[in-house]
Amino acid sequence: MTIDVVDDAATLGVALEEARTGYAEGGVPVGAALFDAGGLLLGRGRNRRVQDGDPSTHGETAAFRAAGRQPTYRGTTMTTTLSPCWYCSGLILQFGISRLVVGEARTFEGRHEWLAGHGVEVVVLDDPECAELMTAFIKEHPGIWNEDIGESS
Amino acid sequence: MTIDVVDDAATLGVALEEARTGYAEGGVPVGAALFDAGGLLLGRGRNRRVQDGDPSTHGETAAFRAAGRQPTYRGTTMTTTLSPCWYCSGLILQFGISRLVVGEARTFEGRHEWLAGHGVEVVVLDDPECAELMTAFIKEHPGIWNEDIGESS
Repeated sequence: MTIDVVDDAATLGVALEEARTGYAEGGVPVGAALFDAGGLLLGRGRNRRVQDGDPSTHGETAAFRAAGRQPTYRGTTMTTTLSPCWYCSGLILQFGISRLVVGEARTFEGRHEWLAGHGVEVVVLDDPECAELMTAFIKEHPGIWNEDIGESS
Repeated sequence: MTIDVVDDAATLGVALEEARTGYAEGGVPVGAALFDAGGLLLGRGRNRRVQDGDPSTHGETAAFRAAGRQPTYRGTTMTTTLSPCWYCSGLILQFGISRLVVGEARTFEGRHEWLAGHGVEVVVLDDPECAELMTAFIKEHPGIWNEDIGESS
């Protein structure tokens, strides 16, 4: 799949499909996708805490894993339906992912300025559907959501 | 397995077993293990970039995944044979892992002071075998090592 270089809204469409699927599965509805500098989809995935009992798989780490081994991440765009936590922000910084497209940062706001200060281009789309999915999930499963971001009950 | 509350050298022994196994498999020889406040082993694992073609599995994320879902990480100790990268440091911070025991920071030094500044207790053991394993691997496979820490060739 190729997205016209790089149509942020189109990349969010891919991440949002993952988030919707996650929600339908009863999982934390965060999806993400990684694209190369030409807009080619490298990998996509979603949070799998509930589905696989796997706390290490956030949307971003799922997309990163699905992309397999890459010689470089220069020029890549990570698009995620939800602002990334420290774990996923660390992933972006360590591997030199160049751009971050965030669906929404209303229900959880990561450290965009920290990433930007390290040279990552951050774009926030403030997409209503991303926020609606998360708002619904947090209302239905507050305990799972707190667990997913390391907030003890 | 229970380790006398909490014997850092003994926890490193578990992480080092993982690292040795990884080295024998031809993989990046970084192992890690997560222990609860009482010294009980919650999960252990090793870097799986080579073995599974999985760039998302560093030693620390492997141990975290193996521990499964936890209601809290308060009081836990993450022991790793090698100083953690940003990705794994972000994991530690996001989930509130209380202590970090580092086998060695000679071959790669993460941001211990950043973690300490956020309240994580950091202990560096400077273990010779951890450093020898990494030194040997980096000499034999410099490209894989650079890939593993996001350093483009």
